[in-house]
Amino acid sequence: MQRPIVGILGGMGPAATADLYAKIIAATPATRDQDHLHVVIWADPTVPDRSTALLQGGEDPTPWLLRGAAQLVAMGASFIAVPCNTAHAFFPAIERTITVPLIHMMDETATAVECAHPSIERVGLLATTGTIASGLYQRWFAKHHIEVIAPNDDQQEQFVMSAIHRVKAGETGQGATNALAEAASFLVAHGAEALIAGCTELPLIFRDGDASVPVIDPTWILAEAVVRRARASQRAVGGR
Amino acid sequence: MQRPIVGILGGMGPAATADLYAKIIAATPATRDQDHLHVVIWADPTVPDRSTALLQGGEDPTPWLLRGAAQLVAMGASFIAVPCNTAHAFFPAIERTITVPLIHMMDETATAVECAHPSIERVGLLATTGTIASGLYQRWFAKHHIEVIAPNDDQQEQFVMSAIHRVKAGETGQGATNALAEAASFLVAHGAEALIAGCTELPLIFRDGDASVPVIDPTWILAEAVVRRARASQRAVGGR
Repeated sequence: MQRPIVGILGGMGPAATADLYAKIIAATPATRDQDHLHVVIWADPTVPDRSTALLQGGEDPTPWLLRGAAQLVAMGASFIAVPCNTAHAFFPAIERTITVPLIHMMDETATAVECAHPSIERVGLLATTGTIASGLYQRWFAKHHIEVIAPNDDQQEQFVMSAIHRVKAGETGQGATNALAEAASFLVAHGAEALIAGCTELPLIFRDGDASVPVIDPTWILAEAVVRRARASQRAVGGR
Repeated sequence: MQRPIVGILGGMGPAATADLYAKIIAATPATRDQDHLHVVIWADPTVPDRSTALLQGGEDPTPWLLRGAAQLVAMGASFIAVPCNTAHAFFPAIERTITVPLIHMMDETATAVECAHPSIERVGLLATTGTIASGLYQRWFAKHHIEVIAPNDDQQEQFVMSAIHRVKAGETGQGATNALAEAASFLVAHGAEALIAGCTELPLIFRDGDASVPVIDPTWILAEAVVRRARASQRAVGGR
């Protein structure tokens, strides 16, 4: 019996990769080791900064992403998940060079938000400046008729990016959460009915209950999509 | 500049693998993604149960371990860590077939305990029945003149193995911790001056402070050894 192998193209950052893996484990119905999914992880933290590449013409991370994706395919990955929102801006280049599917975090998140909150019309996006500028969340949510709003430039730099850099430096304490809460309040005051923790560092410090509206965790949604897809493919090959 | 790649042969179980990866990240001095180590993980949870193989002639996990180790070497791993104590009983077979070093958790733990607690003469081992029977901890600690004692058969089955199976099934609540505390009290009553959480599932539910003597976490010690080794090899190639 051929079981699917889940590929994780990670390291952007490492803590977010560990978080996705832990959430895949938590989302898998299992009573013993052998019930869990076979996972391979390529976590290369030397991938050049995705936001800097998108916004300031910094070094292009594409060659690093292609190398990692190719390694995962060589290891037998049936499909690949990328626990970095900003890296999704480079998906078209990856998809042109590999033969296995990528699971798209924004696509999965927009669908999951519409299913869980069918009446929602506007969400607030907490994400890197690169992700916001890429328009990824805006485009995928537009398909579901949901508007995406973001902090203004000052709030973005002062509260959101500073919180993300703190998590990447290993600071996951209340200080980072408080900084993010400032930006969150701004978004809620401007009509956000839910908040997307749209950088994989953010669910580590900002969770449902930390704001007056629901906080959506795209890493958890990605983990559930991974488990669903792997189990469907196991059923398809006659496994359980 | 050639940076080292850390290989993790995991999936035994998956939560323990995620725990080692998170501890490697925590043990790495870093202020941004790019300071972290390049890690590749092969997490195949279908490896046959190691204790059953050692104790009851169950299916031999060696072919699974060799396949995973070979995949990690193919991905460029400079050395390999295995976050499963019982799997260390199969290290000689792995070492015969691959060219990169394995980091030995019992070796590292025995050295770390002697350094941190130089006057200790006896430790209590909380581990799978397979790990206890393999004599791995006993042999490595004997080199440091430290005696290793284990629970009696009833305590082992009723408290330790049941706690391990609970963690593997995703139950990390107080019930599992309490079961383990029973076995821990027995070991302390028999002279254990520290306790080894010698199954990679156990540090998830039993930590320093959960017993009247220090609780040693071999997963954390392994993570520190991984970081030390990777940084030494980066210095050796002229990196930072």
